[in-house]
Amino acid sequence: MNTDTLNQTNAASSEVVLKSTLAKQAAPRLSLLTSEQKNKALLLMADALVAEAPSIMLANAKDLQRGQESGIAQSLLDRLALNEQRIAAMAEGLRQVVELPDPIGDTLEEITRPNGLHIRKLRVPLGVIGIIYEARPNVTVDAAALCLKTGNAVVLRGGSSALSSNERIIEVLHAALAKSDVPADALQLVTDPSRSSVDEMLTLNGLLDVLIPRGGRSLIQNVVNNATVPVIETGAGVCHTYVDASADYEMALKIAINAKVQRPSVCNSMETLIIHERFAAAHLAAIADQFTALNVELRGCAEAQKLVPAIKPAAGEDWDTEYNDYILNIRIVSGLDEALEHIRHHSTLHSECIVTEDEANAVRFLQEVDAAAVYHNVSTRFTDGFEFGFGAEIGISTQKLHARGPMGLPALTSTKYVVRGNGQIRG
Amino acid sequence: MNTDTLNQTNAASSEVVLKSTLAKQAAPRLSLLTSEQKNKALLLMADALVAEAPSIMLANAKDLQRGQESGIAQSLLDRLALNEQRIAAMAEGLRQVVELPDPIGDTLEEITRPNGLHIRKLRVPLGVIGIIYEARPNVTVDAAALCLKTGNAVVLRGGSSALSSNERIIEVLHAALAKSDVPADALQLVTDPSRSSVDEMLTLNGLLDVLIPRGGRSLIQNVVNNATVPVIETGAGVCHTYVDASADYEMALKIAINAKVQRPSVCNSMETLIIHERFAAAHLAAIADQFTALNVELRGCAEAQKLVPAIKPAAGEDWDTEYNDYILNIRIVSGLDEALEHIRHHSTLHSECIVTEDEANAVRFLQEVDAAAVYHNVSTRFTDGFEFGFGAEIGISTQKLHARGPMGLPALTSTKYVVRGNGQIRG
Repeated sequence: MNTDTLNQTNAASSEVVLKSTLAKQAAPRLSLLTSEQKNKALLLMADALVAEAPSIMLANAKDLQRGQESGIAQSLLDRLALNEQRIAAMAEGLRQVVELPDPIGDTLEEITRPNGLHIRKLRVPLGVIGIIYEARPNVTVDAAALCLKTGNAVVLRGGSSALSSNERIIEVLHAALAKSDVPADALQLVTDPSRSSVDEMLTLNGLLDVLIPRGGRSLIQNVVNNATVPVIETGAGVCHTYVDASADYEMALKIAINAKVQRPSVCNSMETLIIHERFAAAHLAAIADQFTALNVELRGCAEAQKLVPAIKPAAGEDWDTEYNDYILNIRIVSGLDEALEHIRHHSTLHSECIVTEDEANAVRFLQEVDAAAVYHNVSTRFTDGFEFGFGAEIGISTQKLHARGPMGLPALTSTKYVVRGNGQIRG
Repeated sequence: MNTDTLNQTNAASSEVVLKSTLAKQAAPRLSLLTSEQKNKALLLMADALVAEAPSIMLANAKDLQRGQESGIAQSLLDRLALNEQRIAAMAEGLRQVVELPDPIGDTLEEITRPNGLHIRKLRVPLGVIGIIYEARPNVTVDAAALCLKTGNAVVLRGGSSALSSNERIIEVLHAALAKSDVPADALQLVTDPSRSSVDEMLTLNGLLDVLIPRGGRSLIQNVVNNATVPVIETGAGVCHTYVDASADYEMALKIAINAKVQRPSVCNSMETLIIHERFAAAHLAAIADQFTALNVELRGCAEAQKLVPAIKPAAGEDWDTEYNDYILNIRIVSGLDEALEHIRHHSTLHSECIVTEDEANAVRFLQEVDAAAVYHNVSTRFTDGFEFGFGAEIGISTQKLHARGPMGLPALTSTKYVVRGNGQIRG
């Protein structure tokens, strides 16, 4: 933080600036704590959530009532609602984070130079992480836990529909932190529900080290397009499954159905099924029947419609749409090259799959497709920090810098070179 | 690249968009080449530079003449000027890059999950890298070499003062690439000298994967503040050396002088010397004499001026200024805590040093100072990819995401998860 930032802090007095300043001031102390000190704080947080479940549910009831009055969708109300089980699950999540290895202080490289310099590259916290997210109050607890475990202070800006719940949760967590060595100021919640509090966070260079947006496309695009603070982009997934000529029918069907309907609302679900023309000639009718029986609306290219007239025509933008819904595009191709071409033009570089028994085609697909995760004979639904065995996930990065794909604890760290010598100077 | 980007590409026809599109189209082919194929191209490029030295110097003469006519500073003309030795050095740089290990394809993690999924995390190219830089034409060759070696296409936007030199260099390199397996389109030079060509690059999401600005503060700030393409920030260094009470006088003097005057124009040179009050009482007069003899102008806090009246008062902004010149701030402190506080407020998180014989103070400094490189009893001038033994350097990152400190070849890579199975679906 240089003088400019300090002046800015003094001159302005918005909630975002004040709370970010407190987080920034707490970050150095937090960064020096041992894993034991941080874990003790996380366990106190878990216990406090369980003990305070009634008051948290009371606050949640206010959010639910406000939501009902303002007519938000039932699906959003469902995601917003807290009960004892959900609060217990949040506490259990905290205890799982305690069990994870702490990456801070790990030595990533060690170099001794001919001139005697000893260089160590160490993992260190990022500093202060800003997280901008939407409705679900469990993100408040998750994000706080992952940031604190990695020695980072955190400024949370949750959705206004969960404000009462989030405020109560943060009060409870602050009371728990007061009994620990983790400075309570390291955990901040922005309560200003206006859009301007988000806008302010986007350009708070010097106070916030990183921004992680979590939510829908418009939230993420707003952050990516307007932030001057470095961003880790998460989320958008237009994912494809390509069924090659040699694919095993049963396997292909099982993988395609899983990728589409096991949980259509998430970013790693499939939006477009690409099928080799020979496989399609033999099996598209049966596949279409299966999807239709599962209430999936089918849209497709002209070839697909020729084979199965019930398939509706896909419009141009359909091929680039993340439906997050029971809708599937079907594209028939002449072979792997055309499939790769389609993916190159329409992929959001998230998760892409080939189903094939042809090893050469599998290898080409895995090499040539540029995405965070590429799959051979596996549903794209596995792109997930827990499924990869990371034990935690702050999100799925769809950018290429810093972290790509499911992000575990190391994605919340930076590095520092520690160099020791005995008077070396440069010639 | 989704449909939006394609439409944008079709609608616009600026040089930046056209050349970035060509680079984007070449990137997949380049990403699949072996190390041998890429190295062969780099050697051809080196040979071509040497063979075409006369025509490159001819083009350079045009830049120099234009520079003289427009009255640019002699120091800039010196940096711009090419001769046979400098061109041979560029070729030698290319040959050194050939010798470096190729990080592409390296396995960073390998996981087998209980359900049989086999997950490998591989290093892959970033895609297309945009580099925005200033005068020196050797950056054109360096940056091209490092990007191509790591399988990345590159769009170079050099300073207009070196335009003729850069155009000829790129012609020579393109002719060399035509004899190799590296697609010549993977190497692009933007020749539009107007500011708008830079502005266009900043928001070319979908065509450019990363931007790396290299140059002065205003160039870097423009990129950081206005880019929507992810940026690797390099450069600005307000670096401190703290001389502790227990420091060895000869060592402290040697390190401080090296950090300031060995090459004042670079980012890892020292701008402020912080001195413990006891050490200052004993040695500041002698230290000031040494710096004055080296033509370094001294500015300082009130305490420093009391000890050495010849020291001028430092104004508020001096403590945050990267002089890149023969000017040094001197700050007297009561001890380590005050030194850490000063650094926390004024550091650009680049390179920071403590000179001390007190191990506990050294450890505290190395732990508590948040910077890309922290030093004990070593000049800050060592923050450099070559000095760290990386064999190459695309710049020194002063951000915390992706890469921090000197960036070797791995900083120009991303990762990809390759997942293989036999029909796994998510339950």
